Amino acid sequence: MRYELYYWPDAQGRGEFIRLALEEAGADYVDVARRGQRGVDAMLKLMNNARALRPPYAPPFLRAGKLVIAQTANILLYLGPRLGLAPREEAAALWLHQLQLTISDLVVEIHDTHHPVTTYLYYEEQRPAAKRRTADFWRYRIPKLLGYFERVLARSGGAYVLGRRLSYVDLSLFQIIEGLRYAFPSRMKRFERKVPDLVALHDRVAQRPRIAAYLASDRRIPFSQWGIYRYFKELDVK
Amino acid sequence: MRYELYYWPDAQGRGEFIRLALEEAGADYVDVARRGQRGVDAMLKLMNNARALRPPYAPPFLRAGKLVIAQTANILLYLGPRLGLAPREEAAALWLHQLQLTISDLVVEIHDTHHPVTTYLYYEEQRPAAKRRTADFWRYRIPKLLGYFERVLARSGGAYVLGRRLSYVDLSLFQIIEGLRYAFPSRMKRFERKVPDLVALHDRVAQRPRIAAYLASDRRIPFSQWGIYRYFKELDVK
Repeated sequence: MRYELYYWPDAQGRGEFIRLALEEAGADYVDVARRGQRGVDAMLKLMNNARALRPPYAPPFLRAGKLVIAQTANILLYLGPRLGLAPREEAAALWLHQLQLTISDLVVEIHDTHHPVTTYLYYEEQRPAAKRRTADFWRYRIPKLLGYFERVLARSGGAYVLGRRLSYVDLSLFQIIEGLRYAFPSRMKRFERKVPDLVALHDRVAQRPRIAAYLASDRRIPFSQWGIYRYFKELDVK
Repeated sequence: MRYELYYWPDAQGRGEFIRLALEEAGADYVDVARRGQRGVDAMLKLMNNARALRPPYAPPFLRAGKLVIAQTANILLYLGPRLGLAPREEAAALWLHQLQLTISDLVVEIHDTHHPVTTYLYYEEQRPAAKRRTADFWRYRIPKLLGYFERVLARSGGAYVLGRRLSYVDLSLFQIIEGLRYAFPSRMKRFERKVPDLVALHDRVAQRPRIAAYLASDRRIPFSQWGIYRYFKELDVK
């Protein structure tokens, strides 16, 4: 099966959680919108197809044969067992998906640190609100959310959230750590000692041969100021 | 199977999407935290159980036999086929779940109209930001999001998102309309003519015998100023 991934070509964004799963599995896939303007046009055409009975609301979405599946966590729910990154057994599949949905919630909170008031203003137009939101994010939300995943890892009986077996959730947690390091290098440097198991998970994922090759390739879009994770010095340093 | 639902007892909140599914199906369930302080204590104990291998991050969560499942959309993914509110066939199940996840995204945006900057300040402490967020919400987000669901309904070939068969997504869309009417009565009054199929869906759901009985019962928690949907006159009237 050749998968077609549709996502904006200029940012890692939510598409990255899916790319990491496809890359780790060595799956046959095309990152459609990164094939130039014709790729982006193809994505928009699929989204806006007036005859589509089940249109996606927004990227990312995945074409798998006749299926078009949207919503990041839903795509991973579908791909997980097919890529060997999730068990087929229902209780474990629901548990992984539950963790992935909590990661989705965290992604919204990370984005909102730099755009709390509205996405229809520039960061520079909502800087005081961003500072307040970021302060609360690091005071309350990050300790609670990353503390939760740290606890999950501690109880898993292994290095990964399912124990000894790698899953797509581990790849997503790797990406969260990467993104937080990009957006908040100073804050992360101080915080990481509180979540040693998450940091160890991150390092273990980074060293997996296919992930290491992917990260070194030009298939990995660099972090930038257009994604979920953006670096602003005044948000990073207290 | 007797299901146990765990959610805060003072607001409809995210728990309501699950209550509506359980009620429509006539399922045997207990709304644990609404059984007084002992119920709330039981919920907190389950959440904070240091020995739980798969702890929920936050309510709502559902106990079904040995399983404890969290995240609203994940609970509905599990319950859907068991309650006769979703097909077992994979493509349709993924489609419904995708829609439910888009509803989850909308719920966050509804909440953030009154608390854009941070949940750690009162509304009154972030009123200018709330006004700006609400203006953009009604100018851009509501037309886009409800317009999407209206399109989905138009293409479904029936009154419900799957066509002629009711699903848990229809119940959740009913709840979205109810909540928006509570929080923004004037704005909704003007907007509803743009989404006639959604309004018709709402009315059809409200008339289903079990839903009507539920809404008239004291099992339905009234809307209040403590939930996702809150009424502030200055946010409602332009």
